Amino acid sequence: MGNGTLKIRRIAIDTYHENVAYLHRECEIYRAEGFQALSKIQVSADSQRVLAVLNVVDDASIVGPDELGLSEQAYAQLNVEAASLVTVNHAEPPKSMDAVRRKINGERLSEEDFHEIARDIVESRYSKMEMAAFLVATGHNNLDRDELLFLTRSMLQSGERMDWHEALVADKHCIGGIPGNRTSMLVVPIVAAHGMLIPKTSSRAITSPAGTADTMEMLAEVNLPPEQLHHIVSHERGCLAWGGTAKLAPVDDMLISVERPLGIDSQGQMVASILSKKLAAGSTHLLIDIPVGPTAKVRHMGQALALRKLFEFVGDRLNVQLEVVITDGRQPIGLGIGPALEARDIMQVLENAPQAPADLRQKALQLAGRVLEFDPDVRGGHGYAIARDILDSGRALAKMNAIIQAQGAKQVDLHPGKLCHEVCAEENGVITSIDNFQMANIARLAGAPMDKRAGVDLLKKLGDNVGSGEILYRIHAEFPSDFKFAQNLAEQNNGYTIGTNAQILKPFVVF
Amino acid sequence: MGNGTLKIRRIAIDTYHENVAYLHRECEIYRAEGFQALSKIQVSADSQRVLAVLNVVDDASIVGPDELGLSEQAYAQLNVEAASLVTVNHAEPPKSMDAVRRKINGERLSEEDFHEIARDIVESRYSKMEMAAFLVATGHNNLDRDELLFLTRSMLQSGERMDWHEALVADKHCIGGIPGNRTSMLVVPIVAAHGMLIPKTSSRAITSPAGTADTMEMLAEVNLPPEQLHHIVSHERGCLAWGGTAKLAPVDDMLISVERPLGIDSQGQMVASILSKKLAAGSTHLLIDIPVGPTAKVRHMGQALALRKLFEFVGDRLNVQLEVVITDGRQPIGLGIGPALEARDIMQVLENAPQAPADLRQKALQLAGRVLEFDPDVRGGHGYAIARDILDSGRALAKMNAIIQAQGAKQVDLHPGKLCHEVCAEENGVITSIDNFQMANIARLAGAPMDKRAGVDLLKKLGDNVGSGEILYRIHAEFPSDFKFAQNLAEQNNGYTIGTNAQILKPFVVF
Repeated sequence: MGNGTLKIRRIAIDTYHENVAYLHRECEIYRAEGFQALSKIQVSADSQRVLAVLNVVDDASIVGPDELGLSEQAYAQLNVEAASLVTVNHAEPPKSMDAVRRKINGERLSEEDFHEIARDIVESRYSKMEMAAFLVATGHNNLDRDELLFLTRSMLQSGERMDWHEALVADKHCIGGIPGNRTSMLVVPIVAAHGMLIPKTSSRAITSPAGTADTMEMLAEVNLPPEQLHHIVSHERGCLAWGGTAKLAPVDDMLISVERPLGIDSQGQMVASILSKKLAAGSTHLLIDIPVGPTAKVRHMGQALALRKLFEFVGDRLNVQLEVVITDGRQPIGLGIGPALEARDIMQVLENAPQAPADLRQKALQLAGRVLEFDPDVRGGHGYAIARDILDSGRALAKMNAIIQAQGAKQVDLHPGKLCHEVCAEENGVITSIDNFQMANIARLAGAPMDKRAGVDLLKKLGDNVGSGEILYRIHAEFPSDFKFAQNLAEQNNGYTIGTNAQILKPFVVF
Repeated sequence: MGNGTLKIRRIAIDTYHENVAYLHRECEIYRAEGFQALSKIQVSADSQRVLAVLNVVDDASIVGPDELGLSEQAYAQLNVEAASLVTVNHAEPPKSMDAVRRKINGERLSEEDFHEIARDIVESRYSKMEMAAFLVATGHNNLDRDELLFLTRSMLQSGERMDWHEALVADKHCIGGIPGNRTSMLVVPIVAAHGMLIPKTSSRAITSPAGTADTMEMLAEVNLPPEQLHHIVSHERGCLAWGGTAKLAPVDDMLISVERPLGIDSQGQMVASILSKKLAAGSTHLLIDIPVGPTAKVRHMGQALALRKLFEFVGDRLNVQLEVVITDGRQPIGLGIGPALEARDIMQVLENAPQAPADLRQKALQLAGRVLEFDPDVRGGHGYAIARDILDSGRALAKMNAIIQAQGAKQVDLHPGKLCHEVCAEENGVITSIDNFQMANIARLAGAPMDKRAGVDLLKKLGDNVGSGEILYRIHAEFPSDFKFAQNLAEQNNGYTIGTNAQILKPFVVF
């Protein structure tokens, strides 16, 4: 190897959201240990380069002294042929960390600062530690409204932006935290059946038991190339696809990969994340759903109102027509939690089945009605009745089936996992509260969303009467280890409280 | 494999300060992908357990479907025999992260909160991201003085504590940031020759070009087992050892591994770090050196005074006799930067050689004099003269040689690296400033401290006259790649400014 080059080698290790490079301790050219104390190294091949954390290897069968290994993610990013020659350099710490340090010291940042931070993050110059530092420094109330606007705009501009070439591109988005709240899969067919454009791209679940993309995937392909997506949307006026293939506001995804495991989720970051993603997806009209409840993300009405103002302030300045609805977030929506079980609930609502969960139907109709009122031809207050008519007449179901066919229908089997554990009431009474967070965790430990048939199926909801020994819910799983994890968690705390009618948790809002 | 167990396998990958576990994607028992989104997993073998980040492997030669791989660090921590059976669990996020989130939201934390955070960190329950969140949340001025006392005490109590069974155990510590500032290797022999106990344990450099342990290692063994350390100290009254083997304030080391690459270093964290380490090492009397200069860690006199008050407040409450001296931090101390070159300077001062750097000698005498005045028998103001007498008489050199022999003398060769690049003045004039930070970086890129002969050798200091083309300093290296990195950096900015006498940077303090 002349000229300080090493042979690149792909290491079959998936290091998730962090690039890792592997250097043999006895590397012939670079002293591995000297490099390791650095936060990152830069690997270059011709014009391509990638930044990575360095691990030192003592086993030549993993990486040899004349080689440089890259983890799957880093190898894909560098995008060169096997055994290409690369050089290694000290990665300069990202320049924009100066701005982060200024923010830590209480200063106000400029729009240019935010743009530089977003650029460095999107170029993988930030380590996870550095992103955590940025998130904490800009968390809580540390951003004023203008800084929040700057952050949102710089996240939006960090990636590509879709253009549907129409004046009204509708979308709805819930801030999350309520299990089973899959209203998008009802709102989209209703709104598209009305003729309004609603090209919905969704995320997969990260820490929740199901995302819209995970649930839709029970019925149809969701991983669609851009051309097919455009074709479907122009024919059907709507879609329910996974948004991960498009490069929309990539900084958002990178920050989320740090924010979620840390459990920090400030109002400002939530607004920047949602609005940058939706604007990048080409939305012109946006309905935001903020559920309020003691185990929801937003716990008090005052907090919900403050969040609404933030959405309105930033949305107005980014030229999106934005409406916020505050909804009842006291308990899960529908009965099923997990991709298969949630898809079952949705199809029952679309099919007007008698056993369809009424709360899911009601909430979807309310939201669809509000979206329909973005149409200048719909009179204020008439949206709900139009939505109900579309649903009751079967036109929503027909539209959903058309979207499913267009995306690529799957053989449908919505049976839940075969391992089943029944969680029963220990006393007589009325259900006075259901913990959203705990129910989501039980479903997640049972294997959802990776294991699509795993999850929780609720038999009792708030206000229902229950007798001692009666089933509250069933845990479904397919893998014994997951099944045990979920059972253990439910034994510690089953998420339900039973009491008297007077103790039933009151809604903060009546939707 | 029954009962959900996997065979443990040691993976020869050194993942530095983060434990990593490797699970095959087709693992027979656990679904690797479901686990990966979590921040950590827990690996258990009988009563032992270890927490680790999970990487997913697609190559059975690295880890098989019935195995669980652990990186070197994690394997050592778990401490079980090869092929032992282990189980894997979701690691609960550390409970004390609730307190960190409260701190992010601006609340004041209790002493109990800090103890729980320290306990979780020392048990490896925190990821690097979580530590970064804690550091930013408690950085800047976010801790009041009482919280700082709580933090220091909880860091101190996180590890072991040495007891020298004497009433006066002296130490000195510089807050860092000034290259070449190796006064400890002069203060220790002077103070020990006087008979005062000064068992100095030092760190290796992390982001600086040399730590005291790195430099002492040019002359003697520094990695000493505790019994030998005690034996040397009782015979020689002093030592110059590496503190890493003892388990003193381990939380400090873990936080530093995140703080340094992030470049965040708040006054509060500095005080907690230094005092917890020194108190754990058994010091009863402590001299703190705060250098002030435009490229030092502390840039203004006001900042230095505020830092002094913090040291005094916490030190008084932890029952250590503490003195703070504020010193001239405008430029590097001595001439050499890097282990071999700094050791050369020190030996010249001890040997009273005519070419010995005067500033290093002066500063060491001032500090040693202040330490000697901890002795009740030394009259205030007489310390300096006693120190000078010990140095001039050769007693300091004799003591240093005795300590070197006791720790285990090395074959001494202080020649700098054979690759040498001369950085020359581009104009005539006077040296008006030398950038500490830039000089440290050049020496570090040249390979110091891993490569002990690498570094920078200064020929000109502040106020020196220089002619165009005259050598300012030499860069020494042993590896061509490092040599090139350092040369490139010096070409971008050589760290020196040349001007007129009137432009010479004035000291903030005259020591």
